[in-house]
Amino acid sequence: MQAKKRLSEAVMRRLPRYLRYFTELKENGITKISSSELGEKMGMTASQIRQDFSYFGGFGQQGYGYSVEVLYDSMKRILLKEQGFTVIIIGAGNLGTALAKYNNFHKRGFDIIGIFDINPKLIGKTINGTEIMSIDRLEDFIAQHETDIAILSLPRSETKAIAARVANAGVKGLFNFSPMDLKLPHEIPIENVHLSDSLMVLGYKIKNFQEEK
Amino acid sequence: MQAKKRLSEAVMRRLPRYLRYFTELKENGITKISSSELGEKMGMTASQIRQDFSYFGGFGQQGYGYSVEVLYDSMKRILLKEQGFTVIIIGAGNLGTALAKYNNFHKRGFDIIGIFDINPKLIGKTINGTEIMSIDRLEDFIAQHETDIAILSLPRSETKAIAARVANAGVKGLFNFSPMDLKLPHEIPIENVHLSDSLMVLGYKIKNFQEEK
Repeated sequence: MQAKKRLSEAVMRRLPRYLRYFTELKENGITKISSSELGEKMGMTASQIRQDFSYFGGFGQQGYGYSVEVLYDSMKRILLKEQGFTVIIIGAGNLGTALAKYNNFHKRGFDIIGIFDINPKLIGKTINGTEIMSIDRLEDFIAQHETDIAILSLPRSETKAIAARVANAGVKGLFNFSPMDLKLPHEIPIENVHLSDSLMVLGYKIKNFQEEK
Repeated sequence: MQAKKRLSEAVMRRLPRYLRYFTELKENGITKISSSELGEKMGMTASQIRQDFSYFGGFGQQGYGYSVEVLYDSMKRILLKEQGFTVIIIGAGNLGTALAKYNNFHKRGFDIIGIFDINPKLIGKTINGTEIMSIDRLEDFIAQHETDIAILSLPRSETKAIAARVANAGVKGLFNFSPMDLKLPHEIPIENVHLSDSLMVLGYKIKNFQEEK
């Protein structure tokens, strides 16, 4: 696993984008592609692409180019698990509900196996066939169902305590939507999606884009 | 505006995080902070922080440290608009509805002034007091209401055409949730939020975190 360890954060973040492009090429019936053609589509240079691919053994470029099938299969194997990732959602408010209904997660190999909330009015209801359970059952559920990822769509004030609970219970990674930087004593991978931060970056770009004109 | 132009993408992406920390300091009644104390809180070095701040004239560090009030006011002025940013949401499905109800956007100075959908069953309903209008009224609405940002929470197949329409109508930036890289002939700032990509990066980290153990 030497090659994988050397992967920079920047390369890692490009991998899902590669998978999106390989999927599109496959769907369009394209079977071969060169690094320069791929680079043109993706707004990168051919040599950047070859360098990224070199972390994974190069994906067997031959003569005219890469086999789209090989690219697609390899990137799926790098990013996904054969049996899929199991996901629970904690917080069945507006955002949690929207995420539970978000088809793209399932399409990409992430299966929602449980939803949790503290609100008695929501407990027992289902979203897309998955039951909303009481947050009191969190540890029992995780003990009984191997859980890869917990999506935290919770009020900011609750997030830290719940994050610690799921990490202690054995969840392997956290997908956090609260506007805060989670730090846990029990170290597991955390991916923060800070929607307001992204919107503010866009606001900043708009302000300065206008000023430059 | 020389200083602003030199800002790297990395520094720009840290600005909303600074604002979050300054807000928290202010809420906790802290009035002064040194760059090393701030660095410790944020997981950065004191010199990284001073360098970031130097793009904006340094924020007047004196003796023991920075005035939290000055930091907070300055960062708000850098990132936000006094009158707030005006935002429309296109696509009132699960995600669009959740975003329309997301309080953090309003708190941060982004006001939802219109919601659009193609579905006749949704048109005329309101979300958080904002009416859902027919997508046919998009251009008229934008002509009548200065619109800074369009949030695109649309099926992938519709996104490109709608993005071009709002950009042509004069919207100043796009916040795109479709799993695609938008390219527009009419160039305006675009911020992509690729939820499935982020989840896949987390999956990759989990796979490799386990393998490293």
